[in-house]
Amino acid sequence: MKLKSSQEIIVGCNSVETIIELKQDSVDSLLILDSKSNSRVIKIIQLATSNGIRITHVGEKFFEDLDDLNHQGIAIICEKKQEENELFLDEMLEKETLLLLVLDHLTDPHNVGACLRSAAAANVDAVIAPKNRACHLNSTVRKVSSGGSELIPFIIVTNLVRTLNKLRSHGVEVLGADQLATQNYADQDLGKKVAFVIGSEGHGLKRLTSENCDKLIKIDMPGKMESLNTSVTAGILLFEYLRSNKNTI
Amino acid sequence: MKLKSSQEIIVGCNSVETIIELKQDSVDSLLILDSKSNSRVIKIIQLATSNGIRITHVGEKFFEDLDDLNHQGIAIICEKKQEENELFLDEMLEKETLLLLVLDHLTDPHNVGACLRSAAAANVDAVIAPKNRACHLNSTVRKVSSGGSELIPFIIVTNLVRTLNKLRSHGVEVLGADQLATQNYADQDLGKKVAFVIGSEGHGLKRLTSENCDKLIKIDMPGKMESLNTSVTAGILLFEYLRSNKNTI
Repeated sequence: MKLKSSQEIIVGCNSVETIIELKQDSVDSLLILDSKSNSRVIKIIQLATSNGIRITHVGEKFFEDLDDLNHQGIAIICEKKQEENELFLDEMLEKETLLLLVLDHLTDPHNVGACLRSAAAANVDAVIAPKNRACHLNSTVRKVSSGGSELIPFIIVTNLVRTLNKLRSHGVEVLGADQLATQNYADQDLGKKVAFVIGSEGHGLKRLTSENCDKLIKIDMPGKMESLNTSVTAGILLFEYLRSNKNTI
Repeated sequence: MKLKSSQEIIVGCNSVETIIELKQDSVDSLLILDSKSNSRVIKIIQLATSNGIRITHVGEKFFEDLDDLNHQGIAIICEKKQEENELFLDEMLEKETLLLLVLDHLTDPHNVGACLRSAAAANVDAVIAPKNRACHLNSTVRKVSSGGSELIPFIIVTNLVRTLNKLRSHGVEVLGADQLATQNYADQDLGKKVAFVIGSEGHGLKRLTSENCDKLIKIDMPGKMESLNTSVTAGILLFEYLRSNKNTI
C-alpha cells in the first residue's frame, strides 16, 4: 500500500471513528480486516459509507506489517494532522478562562497520546509542546489518544521558556508538576486561567522549565509508589481544575 | 531459556527494581541486554549484586522473543505472584478507613496493570477482581504497573456481586463509575470507607454489578470526548477520595 507523503495510517476503532466523524475530508479510505464484523466495525463501515469513503478489505499481513498490536482490525489512510503555531496561542490569551496542558519535552508517543486523551476529556483550550526534542502529532499519538487529538488544538512553540513567560504575563498561572515540590496540588487556590506543565516520566521537568513556572506542585502519594503515568497526572490535575472551578466557569 | 512452571519473566526498569527491592527471594536471576549500561541499569545491577542475585548478559534475540517492545533491555526471572483470596478481604473489613478499587471484569492486562499503578500511588488497601472472565496478575500486568503490583494486595473473589454486598454490609460505600450516571463524582460526600468500581473500556459495568452498587457516579467531561482510560478514571476517583478525606484520615 503506497502512501503520499502527506498521508499516514491510523488504526483502532475510537480514533478511526472520530476522524471520520470530524475530518471526513481528510480520509482517503477505510481498511477492514477480512474477518472483522462486530457491531462496532459495522457501525464504522456505515459511517464511512455515508461519507462516501472508499472501503477496502485487507488480509492479516497488512496489520502485521504495521507493528501495532492494538489495531482492532480497522484502519484509515488519511491526511496527517497539522499542529498549530504560536499565533494560534496568541489569539486565545485574552480569554477570561483558560486551561492549558504543557508537555515539557515528552518523547514517548504513547505518553503524548494518552495525555491528549485526558486533555480532550477535560476540554483544555490547547496542549502545548516545544518544537525540538519532543514528540508531536503522529499516527501513534493520534491512535493512542482515542480521538482526543482531533478534538483539541496541539500547539508547537519555538521556545518553551519564552512561552511560559508570555502565559504568565497574560495572567495565566503556570503550575509545574514536580514530585519534589513542597506544595500539594489540592491545596492550591486555582484561578480561572491555569497552565499545568508536565515533564517526561524518566526525567521530570527540565531545570529551565521549572525555574520559569509560577509554582511547583506535587500530587501527594501516601504509599511507596513514587510516580504516576503522565496521562494520570494530567487527568488528576486537569479535573481538579474543573472541580474547583465548576461553579464559576 | 527454560522456566519452571512457577516462574515468569518480567521486563522494564521500574518493575524489575521494585521486585528486587521488595521480593528479592522470589528472583532467580537478572538478565541484561549486552549493550545496556546507562546509570539506571547500573543501579539495578548493583542492587541485584548486593542481594546475591545472579546476573546474566543476553543478546537482542532474547528480548525480541518476549514480544514486549518496552523492555528497556532489562528483565528478571522470578516467581509468579500469587493473588490473595476472600479471607484476606474479610480481615480488613473492620478497619475504620478503607479505600478499595474493584475491577469489574477487565480483561486487558495493560489496563489492569495501569490501574494497579494508579491504585498503588493512592495506596489503596486492595484491588479486587472476579475469578472468572477477568485478567489477574501476570507478567504483563506486573510490568505495566511499574512495581505497583508488588505494593498492594490483589484479591480474587468468586462472586463479585456477593462481595459488593458484603462490602456494603460492612459500611463500605460502593460507588460504580458509569458515564451514564446522573451524579458527578465531585459532588459526593465521600466517607472514610469507599470502594470504587470500574468497568472495562469497551463494555463499562456489567448490569448486575451496577445494580449492586450503592450509587453510580460519572466524571463530568465538558468536551466531546466521551471516555477516559480506565487508569485515569481510577486515578481521578482515588485521588478525589484522598483530597476530600485528607484532614480526617
